[in-house]
Amino acid sequence: MSATPSHPGTSRTRSWWGWGYADAQPDDAECAALGALLPGTLARPLPIPRVADLAVPRPCVSPPPALAHLVTADPEVRAAHAMGKAYRDVIRALRGRPGRIPDLVARPGNARDVSDLLDWAGGHGVAVIPFGGGSSVVGGVEYRGDTHRAVLSLDMTSMDRVLQIDTAGRSARIQAGALGPVLEEQLRPHGLTLRHFPQSFEFSTLGGWLATRAGGHYATVRTHIDDFVQSLHVVTPAASGASWRLPASGAGPSPDRLFLGSEGALGVITEAWMRLQQRPRHKASASVTFADFQQALDAVRAVAQSDLAPANCRLLDSGEALLAGAAHDGSAVLVLGFESATGPVDDRLTSALDLARDHGGRTGALTQDRDAPADSAVSAWRSAFLRMPYLRDGLARMGAVVDTFETAATWDKIPALIHAVRTEVGAAALKATGHPATVTCRLTHVYPDGAAPYFTVAVAGRPGDEVQIWDDIKAAANDVLHGHRATITHHHAVGRDHRPGYDLQRPEPFALALRAAKDALDPHRILNPGVLID
Amino acid sequence: MSATPSHPGTSRTRSWWGWGYADAQPDDAECAALGALLPGTLARPLPIPRVADLAVPRPCVSPPPALAHLVTADPEVRAAHAMGKAYRDVIRALRGRPGRIPDLVARPGNARDVSDLLDWAGGHGVAVIPFGGGSSVVGGVEYRGDTHRAVLSLDMTSMDRVLQIDTAGRSARIQAGALGPVLEEQLRPHGLTLRHFPQSFEFSTLGGWLATRAGGHYATVRTHIDDFVQSLHVVTPAASGASWRLPASGAGPSPDRLFLGSEGALGVITEAWMRLQQRPRHKASASVTFADFQQALDAVRAVAQSDLAPANCRLLDSGEALLAGAAHDGSAVLVLGFESATGPVDDRLTSALDLARDHGGRTGALTQDRDAPADSAVSAWRSAFLRMPYLRDGLARMGAVVDTFETAATWDKIPALIHAVRTEVGAAALKATGHPATVTCRLTHVYPDGAAPYFTVAVAGRPGDEVQIWDDIKAAANDVLHGHRATITHHHAVGRDHRPGYDLQRPEPFALALRAAKDALDPHRILNPGVLID
Repeated sequence: MSATPSHPGTSRTRSWWGWGYADAQPDDAECAALGALLPGTLARPLPIPRVADLAVPRPCVSPPPALAHLVTADPEVRAAHAMGKAYRDVIRALRGRPGRIPDLVARPGNARDVSDLLDWAGGHGVAVIPFGGGSSVVGGVEYRGDTHRAVLSLDMTSMDRVLQIDTAGRSARIQAGALGPVLEEQLRPHGLTLRHFPQSFEFSTLGGWLATRAGGHYATVRTHIDDFVQSLHVVTPAASGASWRLPASGAGPSPDRLFLGSEGALGVITEAWMRLQQRPRHKASASVTFADFQQALDAVRAVAQSDLAPANCRLLDSGEALLAGAAHDGSAVLVLGFESATGPVDDRLTSALDLARDHGGRTGALTQDRDAPADSAVSAWRSAFLRMPYLRDGLARMGAVVDTFETAATWDKIPALIHAVRTEVGAAALKATGHPATVTCRLTHVYPDGAAPYFTVAVAGRPGDEVQIWDDIKAAANDVLHGHRATITHHHAVGRDHRPGYDLQRPEPFALALRAAKDALDPHRILNPGVLID
Repeated sequence: MSATPSHPGTSRTRSWWGWGYADAQPDDAECAALGALLPGTLARPLPIPRVADLAVPRPCVSPPPALAHLVTADPEVRAAHAMGKAYRDVIRALRGRPGRIPDLVARPGNARDVSDLLDWAGGHGVAVIPFGGGSSVVGGVEYRGDTHRAVLSLDMTSMDRVLQIDTAGRSARIQAGALGPVLEEQLRPHGLTLRHFPQSFEFSTLGGWLATRAGGHYATVRTHIDDFVQSLHVVTPAASGASWRLPASGAGPSPDRLFLGSEGALGVITEAWMRLQQRPRHKASASVTFADFQQALDAVRAVAQSDLAPANCRLLDSGEALLAGAAHDGSAVLVLGFESATGPVDDRLTSALDLARDHGGRTGALTQDRDAPADSAVSAWRSAFLRMPYLRDGLARMGAVVDTFETAATWDKIPALIHAVRTEVGAAALKATGHPATVTCRLTHVYPDGAAPYFTVAVAGRPGDEVQIWDDIKAAANDVLHGHRATITHHHAVGRDHRPGYDLQRPEPFALALRAAKDALDPHRILNPGVLID
């Protein structure tokens, strides 16, 4: 296997150290402009790091001849598999101190390859880190231990085919290593779509979405990838097999639900039958501004408790609205979107806007199909959304410390939770850096009984201390979430960064069951060590 | 604790041997009329069995003094806890050969009582059978083993309180032993409803619904009780605890999903925070007849793949339609219902009827609110639905053998599956009895990718051989489901009757994990032995 600098499905080169495509990273001038927004950042950006400057150690193991064709020890490839794409990962790369670089990277071509690699690793004390698009922002794809002889990164992206399509039943059998655009391209000729569009869409895989219970396109009802799973094929060190392809079942606890969210600690998801959507033909969207954030929350709750089921229902607080260019007067902005493959959605949008106005919202222009010029606030938000992770890297190069974290809580806890994050995490950032922090919030998914707030914290760091500062801020964030009984993650995953919060949240009967399952399925404890369970 | 002949929440007496209320059982004349429908049944009904005629053995154990106030050895109570309410249970009672009668019945008042009872049972080799409303139709609440010193039926119905209501967040903390009407009565003053209406609604509990992943009110989207769970409190022999109350989470595998469907084999669900609905103010329903069943299937698939989300979408084949009085000309009948707490649903009904007509359906009258006289086919079906289990008992008293079983499969498998059940199960029933069987089918829940067919098989038995005949028919049914990769149960549960099919269906990695979880949570193997795992 040779190094593959270009990203699967494209001819563009992926950044080994930062978000997305190398050619989409902000240039020095844009970095400087970003830095100017945060008082106390560097005068000029940190240079883009080069693998050649890293001391990449020689691998501690060699693969057996029968598996050698699947495995590479190329330093460039290994460096690109050392970490995910959290701020913590980016700043470590920028500072020339990445996490443990894996000894080997394997790219299996089928489930048998995965099984053979696990067999070999289990027999040789080699830790195996399942790796999809590598976009983890929670330390989910790196090795932080010291009890294994070597580390193998198991890159699944060679398994990227849609193997079978059931058009009448709107479902497809898809290999787990398919990146978002790669699988959508194969579904498009059939008029179908998985319609799972996380912010990482271009740089994350089906298997990664499944293993982390990713949040997707729909803001309401079916918010997570979980709901679109018909069956999973899982390879574990102890056994392999697929659940039956079923629209629903009540036969015992759901087998799939144990592996959804297992983050590579129980097994490797190699393929899945997924439920698909017809491509929507009817769309309508609009934005609503609110002078008062509590009124905006009440409006969103009313929409979430209606049966209108918007596909998009994203509430930006005044800071988010300002950064996204969606409002400049301190207003909060609610972005609403409806869509359907079968009929017009204008009535649903109208009803949702009525609910918003009942709670003090001021409505803007409606956009009723995809070709019409979009409501400017909706359009501004969309562009900003996709650009955000790149801007974060630009800020990192200016010595800023940036954390984004998300959670979910019941409505009764939401106002106090958001207030506490703003004040307590803001105070922790100030204490850690001496600089005032920007703390903004948006709701990304909403439910009849609660909502999922997403927070962004940005503050000027102290050169060289960024990781420690980030860890301090993260600890404060985890404390606030725990104190308000808000989940440690709604859709990013637990990884290694959220373990302390996860351990406190997980009920004891499930902890015992999960540990027992780990012992049974991964007796040599080689799978993604440190994730979910020690 | 004394015997309580009256049913919780009412002054009516529950039948110890048959479905529902004793005073609602068909009288001898009605039984005879039912028997006349099936050639070969008895000339007069079997007598209603009396506990006094059973040889109820003395209990093999006594409870410790500290728990004695929770426990009874009353023969009447014990006999009523010996089995569920499957045909197999009813005929055994009618023939005076009920299953193993538990030594004791306990009615805990809180989670601590449950924990204390499990501790005592674990230390004394006593099997514990969690028992809600006792309406299991799959052998889920009886003891069939011989490796325990004694058997304790753990009747949860004293824990029937709604403990807390969050009106703004539309959710409530409810004890697991609350029967359907008992919990709805406590929610009604708040304008809220759980809106979970299985056929067993009056005679089953929240805990039973959760432990069996029951199918509920909604025919589409949120079909199972699972989707309405905010958090569970579980007591196991090894540990107890509650998951956090969250609208959604991506923190590891869902802890609740391991206990949903665990059928009392991993722990006892003592309470749950449940998501509620506002009571619907807008309703509309209609029926559609189809001369051709395949066209009806296509119509239902079109509705399921739209985003119309009917609350009811029940397709009766010609046999079901005839029995329910919904059609008399060999047509299949689709019963469609829409409802909303927030706005009119007429447009959605109209769109669904358009789809049905596109596939050859003939539409009847529309019913647009609850006070209007209902469409006669809809109304006939509703009355028949609630009466069905009583009629089954009437048929049993006439010596008929009746099985009802349900499944789910993807659309590509549905036509052949239904055909195979009609022919192969019909042939098995004929072979076992020498009499022609009636086999009818309805779809109870539908999905974009498949549907849940529900079958009823009725045939005249041979006096005294009914259990063997039923077992033969059941084996044939299980074989057909397995051959078509249709789930062994969509919402009834696995229990003991579906174990062979379940074991074949369950993927091996999950089987290993489940066995490991059982060992960890129930080390003395006292919880519902024989269910899910040996």
